[in-house]
Amino acid sequence: MTLCDIGNTHLHFYQEGRVWACAPQSLQVLEDEVFYISVNAQHTTALLEICPNAKDLSPQMHLASKYEGLGVDRMAACLGLRGKSGVVVDAGSAITLDVMENGEHLGGVILPGLASYCQAYKSISPALDLPPNLRVNLDRLPNGTADALGYGILQSVLLTLKHLVGERKVYFTGGDGKFLANFFPQGLYNGLLVFEGMLATLGV
Amino acid sequence: MTLCDIGNTHLHFYQEGRVWACAPQSLQVLEDEVFYISVNAQHTTALLEICPNAKDLSPQMHLASKYEGLGVDRMAACLGLRGKSGVVVDAGSAITLDVMENGEHLGGVILPGLASYCQAYKSISPALDLPPNLRVNLDRLPNGTADALGYGILQSVLLTLKHLVGERKVYFTGGDGKFLANFFPQGLYNGLLVFEGMLATLGV
Repeated sequence: MTLCDIGNTHLHFYQEGRVWACAPQSLQVLEDEVFYISVNAQHTTALLEICPNAKDLSPQMHLASKYEGLGVDRMAACLGLRGKSGVVVDAGSAITLDVMENGEHLGGVILPGLASYCQAYKSISPALDLPPNLRVNLDRLPNGTADALGYGILQSVLLTLKHLVGERKVYFTGGDGKFLANFFPQGLYNGLLVFEGMLATLGV
Repeated sequence: MTLCDIGNTHLHFYQEGRVWACAPQSLQVLEDEVFYISVNAQHTTALLEICPNAKDLSPQMHLASKYEGLGVDRMAACLGLRGKSGVVVDAGSAITLDVMENGEHLGGVILPGLASYCQAYKSISPALDLPPNLRVNLDRLPNGTADALGYGILQSVLLTLKHLVGERKVYFTGGDGKFLANFFPQGLYNGLLVFEGMLATLGV
């Protein structure tokens, strides 16, 4: 059995603990039974062209929540807690934060992803088109552009996450999850959280 | 005498307390003596085509600072405090924050502007291409996309500004300055701060 999490940039695959990512134009035939969830219709079509029997897992996915329009990837990551209470932070092209309490989803927040901030600065002005320093010292006022940009991104993201996390346990996933988890003493990184939710949905 | 603050979107003019903004392609001839500062070379060329005698004020502008690459508009806004201590927040296409103490610039931070956040979300995914609710209640966890996006923008910007402002006085300027000033009991809005700095430079 192979699981596929179809995102806006890549398709992420999981097979017996092994994971890999693929661009939609580089997909290869899978002989296996494939279950997928998707937030990108175009990339879903790409997968179905290669694996016409792949099954959409989202109709089987249930999460108690009042949230309208919760993405299926966020839902899967929340189900990946398998009933544990805590905060889920998925730091990819967007940074989503979702609060789970006794199996119930209480709400969530969306921030731009770290790369999206860089792109935003670049679009504002050529003067801001340089790599923000994300290793900036947050205890000092920046005195240069790379530090000022890095501080803007990192401090604003961290203050928002810390404000919402409070004393709760926080589970990070996604491409920038490991980096962000470093700033939280009670932070855990689990790159497989979305797949955990898909496995839980399949009763595995 | 007319002052012109050339930005990345508009050219802003000041004449005896009257202010107006102009797109670079809609400039009209000015009979007056014109002093300008600019962060956009292309728009400067547009002004000089219409007003060939306009004078660049930036060589006369001096601000005590260790910051490397401080934009001339940020410098002008800081000089607009005319020696008062406090924090300057210019909320336009970017949100810049600069700390002034006894006439000295201690450093600063750059965040994307409010409109730039909306553009960033839109670029991430069509699912995030909707107007963020910037009137969202920050005391509750969002339960829908427009609120989750609005919370992400507003809370992250406000927490960062509040963290840096502390107990200091804070002077807001720029297109979104009035809106953001509402969240600060010690906040003052002055849409003319950059022009104040230009006037101070001219000894007016």
